[in-house]
Amino acid sequence: MEDDSTHLEKSESQHNMMDGEERDPESNSLHQPLLKRNRTLSSNPLALVGAKVSHIESLDYEINENDIFKHDWRSRSKVQVFQYIFLKWKLAFLVGLLTGLIATFINLAVENIAGYKLLAVVHLIKKKRYVIGFAYFTGANLILTTVAAVLCVWFAPTAAGPGIPEIKAYLNGVDTPNMFGASTLIVKIIGSIGAVSAGLDLGKEGPLVHIGSCIASLLGQGGPDNYRLKWRWLRYFNNDRDRRDIITSGTSSGVCAAFRAPVGGVLFALEEVATWWRSALLWRTFFSTAVVVVVLRLFIEICSTGNCGLFGSGGLIMFDVSDVVVRYHVLDIIPVTIIGIIGGVLGSLYNYFLHKVLSLYSIINQKGKIHKLFLGLSVALFTSVCQYCLPFLAKCRACDPSITEACPTNGRSGNFKQFNCPDGYYNDLATLLLTTNDDAVRNVFSTNTPSEYTMTSLLIFFALFCILGLFTFGIAVPTGLFLPIILIGSAYGRLLGIAMGSYTHIDQGLYAVLGAASLMAGSMRMTVSLCVIFLELTNNLLLLPITMMVLLIAKTVGDSFNPSIYEIILELKGLPFLDANPEPWMRNLTVGELADAKPPVVALSGIEKVSRIVDVLKNTTHNGFPIVDEGAVPPGFVVPVEKALHGLILRAHLLQALKKKWFLTERRKTEDWEVREKFNWVDLAEREAKIEEVAVTQNEMDMYVDLHPLANATPYTVVESMSVAKAMVLFRQVGLRHLLIVPKYQAAGASPVVGILTRQDLRACNILTAFPHLARSKKDH
Amino acid sequence: MEDDSTHLEKSESQHNMMDGEERDPESNSLHQPLLKRNRTLSSNPLALVGAKVSHIESLDYEINENDIFKHDWRSRSKVQVFQYIFLKWKLAFLVGLLTGLIATFINLAVENIAGYKLLAVVHLIKKKRYVIGFAYFTGANLILTTVAAVLCVWFAPTAAGPGIPEIKAYLNGVDTPNMFGASTLIVKIIGSIGAVSAGLDLGKEGPLVHIGSCIASLLGQGGPDNYRLKWRWLRYFNNDRDRRDIITSGTSSGVCAAFRAPVGGVLFALEEVATWWRSALLWRTFFSTAVVVVVLRLFIEICSTGNCGLFGSGGLIMFDVSDVVVRYHVLDIIPVTIIGIIGGVLGSLYNYFLHKVLSLYSIINQKGKIHKLFLGLSVALFTSVCQYCLPFLAKCRACDPSITEACPTNGRSGNFKQFNCPDGYYNDLATLLLTTNDDAVRNVFSTNTPSEYTMTSLLIFFALFCILGLFTFGIAVPTGLFLPIILIGSAYGRLLGIAMGSYTHIDQGLYAVLGAASLMAGSMRMTVSLCVIFLELTNNLLLLPITMMVLLIAKTVGDSFNPSIYEIILELKGLPFLDANPEPWMRNLTVGELADAKPPVVALSGIEKVSRIVDVLKNTTHNGFPIVDEGAVPPGFVVPVEKALHGLILRAHLLQALKKKWFLTERRKTEDWEVREKFNWVDLAEREAKIEEVAVTQNEMDMYVDLHPLANATPYTVVESMSVAKAMVLFRQVGLRHLLIVPKYQAAGASPVVGILTRQDLRACNILTAFPHLARSKKDH
Repeated sequence: MEDDSTHLEKSESQHNMMDGEERDPESNSLHQPLLKRNRTLSSNPLALVGAKVSHIESLDYEINENDIFKHDWRSRSKVQVFQYIFLKWKLAFLVGLLTGLIATFINLAVENIAGYKLLAVVHLIKKKRYVIGFAYFTGANLILTTVAAVLCVWFAPTAAGPGIPEIKAYLNGVDTPNMFGASTLIVKIIGSIGAVSAGLDLGKEGPLVHIGSCIASLLGQGGPDNYRLKWRWLRYFNNDRDRRDIITSGTSSGVCAAFRAPVGGVLFALEEVATWWRSALLWRTFFSTAVVVVVLRLFIEICSTGNCGLFGSGGLIMFDVSDVVVRYHVLDIIPVTIIGIIGGVLGSLYNYFLHKVLSLYSIINQKGKIHKLFLGLSVALFTSVCQYCLPFLAKCRACDPSITEACPTNGRSGNFKQFNCPDGYYNDLATLLLTTNDDAVRNVFSTNTPSEYTMTSLLIFFALFCILGLFTFGIAVPTGLFLPIILIGSAYGRLLGIAMGSYTHIDQGLYAVLGAASLMAGSMRMTVSLCVIFLELTNNLLLLPITMMVLLIAKTVGDSFNPSIYEIILELKGLPFLDANPEPWMRNLTVGELADAKPPVVALSGIEKVSRIVDVLKNTTHNGFPIVDEGAVPPGFVVPVEKALHGLILRAHLLQALKKKWFLTERRKTEDWEVREKFNWVDLAEREAKIEEVAVTQNEMDMYVDLHPLANATPYTVVESMSVAKAMVLFRQVGLRHLLIVPKYQAAGASPVVGILTRQDLRACNILTAFPHLARSKKDH
Repeated sequence: MEDDSTHLEKSESQHNMMDGEERDPESNSLHQPLLKRNRTLSSNPLALVGAKVSHIESLDYEINENDIFKHDWRSRSKVQVFQYIFLKWKLAFLVGLLTGLIATFINLAVENIAGYKLLAVVHLIKKKRYVIGFAYFTGANLILTTVAAVLCVWFAPTAAGPGIPEIKAYLNGVDTPNMFGASTLIVKIIGSIGAVSAGLDLGKEGPLVHIGSCIASLLGQGGPDNYRLKWRWLRYFNNDRDRRDIITSGTSSGVCAAFRAPVGGVLFALEEVATWWRSALLWRTFFSTAVVVVVLRLFIEICSTGNCGLFGSGGLIMFDVSDVVVRYHVLDIIPVTIIGIIGGVLGSLYNYFLHKVLSLYSIINQKGKIHKLFLGLSVALFTSVCQYCLPFLAKCRACDPSITEACPTNGRSGNFKQFNCPDGYYNDLATLLLTTNDDAVRNVFSTNTPSEYTMTSLLIFFALFCILGLFTFGIAVPTGLFLPIILIGSAYGRLLGIAMGSYTHIDQGLYAVLGAASLMAGSMRMTVSLCVIFLELTNNLLLLPITMMVLLIAKTVGDSFNPSIYEIILELKGLPFLDANPEPWMRNLTVGELADAKPPVVALSGIEKVSRIVDVLKNTTHNGFPIVDEGAVPPGFVVPVEKALHGLILRAHLLQALKKKWFLTERRKTEDWEVREKFNWVDLAEREAKIEEVAVTQNEMDMYVDLHPLANATPYTVVESMSVAKAMVLFRQVGLRHLLIVPKYQAAGASPVVGILTRQDLRACNILTAFPHLARSKKDH
């Protein structure tokens, strides 16, 4: 957790009794003083989904204005500035290119593996060898799941799950460890292929977003941690600000590759993932997604000649309904509203139950790696059994001769699966279940086929995928949320379409599309980006107005019940995400009161003894320390009268000073050239060092370090009387890691810093733990 | 201008000599101290386009944490909070509804007025009565222009021009006066109808954006200034933050109404207009545009039955090319690149020349109102003459029998105008010129008509609209930039299409669309929003990848020459717009140095004498004053040792205190209830008062005012050693009006505030005037 939290946790137990006392409901909060001392803010010890997150640092998005940075910046030539800009564009290009290529590879692999698997099964079924078919189908799926799960459990735990919440947290300033490494990338790619080919109820969309971000991060830092390229010009990107920008591009490219939606990708990153946004970033991100689209288009052209094995029209063009004439009149507003409301209600129910299932899973997953693996395999087994056996419940239906499409089909894809039926008949449930998820979506979206599915089959399909959608997401393979939600949503959309019958002018396939959109909005709570993604997916602009209506209604309904699914997962994972807007009750609390509830600030002198630095680094987990200069002691006083805040020094930089043995034998200021000789800003970008690795001799312990040149001389400060709401606006808008609190009235000899605020301190749940009366006032209000 | 500028201008003359001395190119900037005293920052006395902007205030987006605000906020009940949220949505709905209705009205009026005018002219030409036709055409156009110009010149000068730059400035925090009033709205509507019907080279798109913002602003404040509704719940919106949000909705609705592009409208506001953005705003804005689309669609359905006079398919559906099959292969990348490059070059040339023309016009316009009117009329006369006479230069062309469309047409709209030709022939230049601009765009975009236009006709069309586009924009009528640029761009696009001949697979009409897109990107420098607007306009998703490429290339090329057209106009108008990113050289300057270059801060005591307040208000133009509390004078000292910064008080609130005669006979602190009895926050939202209107008797002059409860107790502060770059990030991200500079080391008795930064102080051009050596270092770099 960030900075002070571990420290806080230790001291929390001491105050538990007092906490309990003050939470007494009898005590009237109105008569209590606002200011409560001796209370500590606790971190949020919530259950973690999947991987154990041990130590999450915050990112430094603030410009660290210390002497070295200033000197380095001034010495940059015009050519270097140009190199830097050129490189940014080159990286954006590479991110798009590689994401496009990897998306192509995943699509090819999935379509071929799943395709040959299904072909063999269909073959066996045609020969009525049902049991062998079942064994083959289930066995293949279990093997594929095992590959994915073993990789995720043993080699890269962070590759499990969708990854989007962690990316969202990263762009908010939370650095989840091992999130963007090379092993994560490789496991994610292979695991995603395995899991999707295994027919599990999950998509490759979420993983592709994570893959895009991994590529971006690896490119930005010049390769994986251990084999990093040390190219000179890459050093410009060795800072959190530029990494943030590249990862934003990567996220957009991933969404673009998943849905072939370049504008939707940019907007998804903007609306859902990114916390800070600049218009220059908009442009560069757009460039990345344009590259992805070009790559995908090239690949489709190449594959259209049949060079890609079983890859036909599958995989990429998910559901093109551009040839459908959309007609609707004013009365169609009623079913559209109903879809929106259902989407909102079901979406929030889905969020609610998914929360429960994930909490349950985290208990199972904590028991060990084998448990994780078996959990995944059980879900895969259940999925396979249902997919194979349920179609036998459906009756065979005669092919409609008026439809031009082939019926029945025996191939891998196609709209009217023969399954166990005689020639001239098809099994509508097998069409939906015994196929890849992408094909299932395409089949349920199919237009101009009003009598293809029976109500019963669609109800079974809907119920099955509700169950699978809840129980598949938490297993230890790369999972995506988009496809399960689209499947559930399209099922009830099409059901409603059938129920409306001739009362509506809208095609059943479009009802399915609207249902999918409504459930996405009801669960993920996005509007503009979803609208554009659906626009680009369905390739039909005439759908726009009704899609907008459905999305707005579903989001409104959903928001009145619970937060979005990503926010729920973020909270489950215990990631200290900082919301955009302060809670209203934060206006009733000043940062001074907040600082009083924390342990006192650990400050260092401008020229500090080595022993004190080592002591401080060993005994605290703080990542930033204010530097306070003490003036001389005037005659007649015992303490220095004038203390002044010089700045803030980061733990990493203190460690660098110790590691480089940059010690002085006497208490004096260093010269500029001395600093520059020892440090350049490549050193200062290094963050990996630990205090345990630094050896300092007893002799050196009595020496001094001049911390002035290493400190950020201009940290952002707020006065202690400022409300938490206002401080939070500053913290989040500017993207800070530490915010110093200065006293309103400076008494002689008093410290010029009364507290430090970090991300954890500004989170609503943490403040409410320390100030429970605010929660009460919140309810009263 | 903001705050200190007028004050600065006064003192600037005193320092001119010194300035001149220091601008001496011989003096070596390296040996000069960074800190230069006795220099002042000047405001930017640039020429103003159109209206004279006398006094521009900044907006208060910061939460003003004073006692009254806090008390009022705490007393709000849950019902009131709900009312507030409900009202926000209701306003978003009303903004969309009214914008949609007014857009409908404008379209109906324009199509009918221009339609009957053109029908009569066509009728006269068919009878070969060319001179009377000319007189009628020119006369009608001049009368329509006169109506528009007289209204704009005499009744609402701010209604002239597009309004988008001022909206952009407003959302950045610059309150241009009279921009969003009722008279502006009415003049804009009527003026826009007149100017567009007169066939001038301008569109209704820009004005519609301004109209949307006016509606939003008027709704938000409950009506026009003089007849404002005093509904209780509307008081919640009487603050700059909520007005900003509503106006953003209005802007999006306006763009949506102009192009029938709901997503494009939202993105336009996001990418081009808005400075701050929240995801809640994204959603509400999206709702507004959805309402606009529904209104427009209803209106089209009603008009499709022929109830709307001459309004046929014109006006709204600008260029639907959804039925065109777009085919392109890899080699088509070459013409697409060429279009992009031409767009970038021409776009920046257009910006360059428009700047020159506007500077020239501002000299003419300053001569008086009659001059403005005559300028407008001359342009209208020139336009009419060209539109009527140039088609005579074109040869009549035989109708192509293979084309199903009616040829020749004599009606108002249609693709093959007969004009002076015999039956069976058409005049291609008349098709482009003697029609409404909307129809001209539709005609030049027309697809599957490869041989319709000759190169010569298109060249004449291109040249004419280049000239008209430059000379029409600055006249005193409501003008839009979109349509002139689309016309120019489509002309060269189609020319390139003809030149490519059979080497390309892309239709000439699509070339025209791409040309229009490229010139928009080359001049306005938007990417994502333009892409989506063109997507929604052309209704063809297959165009997306090449549109993206064209836009990216055009913007890149354009950016290497000059800034976007909106930035140029903002600078011409002298609006103190604050850019998103600080200039690199701003890292070399500290805010302390900046403060030293300004006159000393005028501070007030916590309990201040009335005479001093009156004196300060009369003799300065500052809008914010720091409140400094002075402690008691300790024994042995002559001045108080402990001075502390209490906060910042706004000029408007000082005036309120004087107006309400809130005086104390002795120097004492007031009680809470005393304050609440006199003030509520509705009073504090009032900003209109002037010091000249306040009468204070001689007796009262000796009394005191306790300023503590009125002051914002928690202004944002920075330490004097912070770089300007970093302070600017804070200023712009948080949306400040005043930023206080506090000393790094507080000496006994020294002021706790060393300066105040305002918007003007942080503008690059102003800083460079005071620190010319930075400009040199900028060049060296």
